[in-house]
Amino acid sequence: MPQNDLIAPGSVWLVGAGPGDPDLLTRKAERLLRAADIVFHDALVGQGVLDLIPEDTERVSVGKRSGRHSRDQRAINDLLAEAALAGRRVVRLKGGDPSIFGRSIEEIEHLARFGIPAHICPGITAAAAAAASGGVSLTLRGLARTLTFVTAHARAGETIELDWETLAAPQSTLAVYMGRAAAGEIARGLMAAGRAPDTPVVVAVNVSLPTERLIRGHLSALPFLVRTIGADDPTLLLIGEAVRGACPAGVAIDPGMFAQPPVGLSAFTAI
Amino acid sequence: MPQNDLIAPGSVWLVGAGPGDPDLLTRKAERLLRAADIVFHDALVGQGVLDLIPEDTERVSVGKRSGRHSRDQRAINDLLAEAALAGRRVVRLKGGDPSIFGRSIEEIEHLARFGIPAHICPGITAAAAAAASGGVSLTLRGLARTLTFVTAHARAGETIELDWETLAAPQSTLAVYMGRAAAGEIARGLMAAGRAPDTPVVVAVNVSLPTERLIRGHLSALPFLVRTIGADDPTLLLIGEAVRGACPAGVAIDPGMFAQPPVGLSAFTAI
Repeated sequence: MPQNDLIAPGSVWLVGAGPGDPDLLTRKAERLLRAADIVFHDALVGQGVLDLIPEDTERVSVGKRSGRHSRDQRAINDLLAEAALAGRRVVRLKGGDPSIFGRSIEEIEHLARFGIPAHICPGITAAAAAAASGGVSLTLRGLARTLTFVTAHARAGETIELDWETLAAPQSTLAVYMGRAAAGEIARGLMAAGRAPDTPVVVAVNVSLPTERLIRGHLSALPFLVRTIGADDPTLLLIGEAVRGACPAGVAIDPGMFAQPPVGLSAFTAI
Repeated sequence: MPQNDLIAPGSVWLVGAGPGDPDLLTRKAERLLRAADIVFHDALVGQGVLDLIPEDTERVSVGKRSGRHSRDQRAINDLLAEAALAGRRVVRLKGGDPSIFGRSIEEIEHLARFGIPAHICPGITAAAAAAASGGVSLTLRGLARTLTFVTAHARAGETIELDWETLAAPQSTLAVYMGRAAAGEIARGLMAAGRAPDTPVVVAVNVSLPTERLIRGHLSALPFLVRTIGADDPTLLLIGEAVRGACPAGVAIDPGMFAQPPVGLSAFTAI
């Protein structure tokens, strides 16, 4: 069992794993992983990050994947509390940043009911990593004065309910987490609320991993941009003038693959 | 001169320094700092982070502080290009994340004019670090479905022009960067647009540093919450239901210090 002052026995650290690249963990997160004696991690946290956990540290995958969240949250809460009550040094490793669509508060409140102290170590969120990969900013003086994060995750069979009027505000960048399945709905909603069909879009898949793909196009073509993305590949949509200059570094889409090329497809840059 | 493959001679890395705590740098940022032979850093980047730069690496403060940005940007652009054209391995170290209110594109576009390659390494942005310090999330299922970042920075003598109707949307968290000077205007604008006066607010000062203060109150009291903050202390405002449970870890404000206690002051928790 590691000897250290970083994690008090019987307490829990919620640690941001960042987008995937182990080099994008914070120095603090790395130290916490080395100090834990048990690590509960999302299924989305990749092997490169897990390799930073010492071999003799117990690791438990608590399998959260897009579309199958709710079923597991109560079980995760129980596992965390059980380990902490047994006096262990617990790390709960979450993809991205724990405070952005991470459901951290549900875990912290559950732990608080047992008097278990919980702390948060922040992580690089996917939007920041995707912007870095694409060589763009998420804000731009005069053109993108606000940046809004939203998740398009919905329970199976439910439609997403978002305030399109607000999200379509001009001079803003929109980052949509878990945006693959709802891409069509998002494009329609934003355009119906007045966002221009030729608004630049970047679809970022497996951000920061060796399998990363950035696909660039126009808002009107968004449903087509996501067609080649697997259901389990973490997908982020960046929408707005700020991402116009993003450098796609992966897939080339041939307009000829469509019987009727969608509007906006000419915006693709073949690699 | 460091020997390495991380930074090609004659190229520039824009590196996110995070909010201040050197442990909140990414592992990649740390390696880039060790690989550089010259580092240009914001004045806001603190000593703890600068201590990660090897002693024999040249470091240049390019003095950006709240309210005095524009004067310096052109000079910074020139310094970066000059160093890269001399074949040096250049790091441009920026507070927080380079893609969020970092003016990175102005530097990247200037460098591109000389054919100088530029890359971005993301950093922990202040909002994520403040949420971690306060033990809260920035999003909350059903209560805070969106998270919007905005900067309240304006040139001297100018008023900030923000779309209060959009920013006051319910079920959202608002993170206002550089929000100290405009705190009164922000509270009035949001309340006039319908945001409830008792909306929870956290004022986060010097986030993640030993001098960190989190001050909690209601939106209506925002102008008073910022009164004790120095003009050069980086200040972030977090506004919305998601931050209701934040644990203030610093200052106690005595309602008796005001001749007429402002509305919402009862929301303070004395430490």
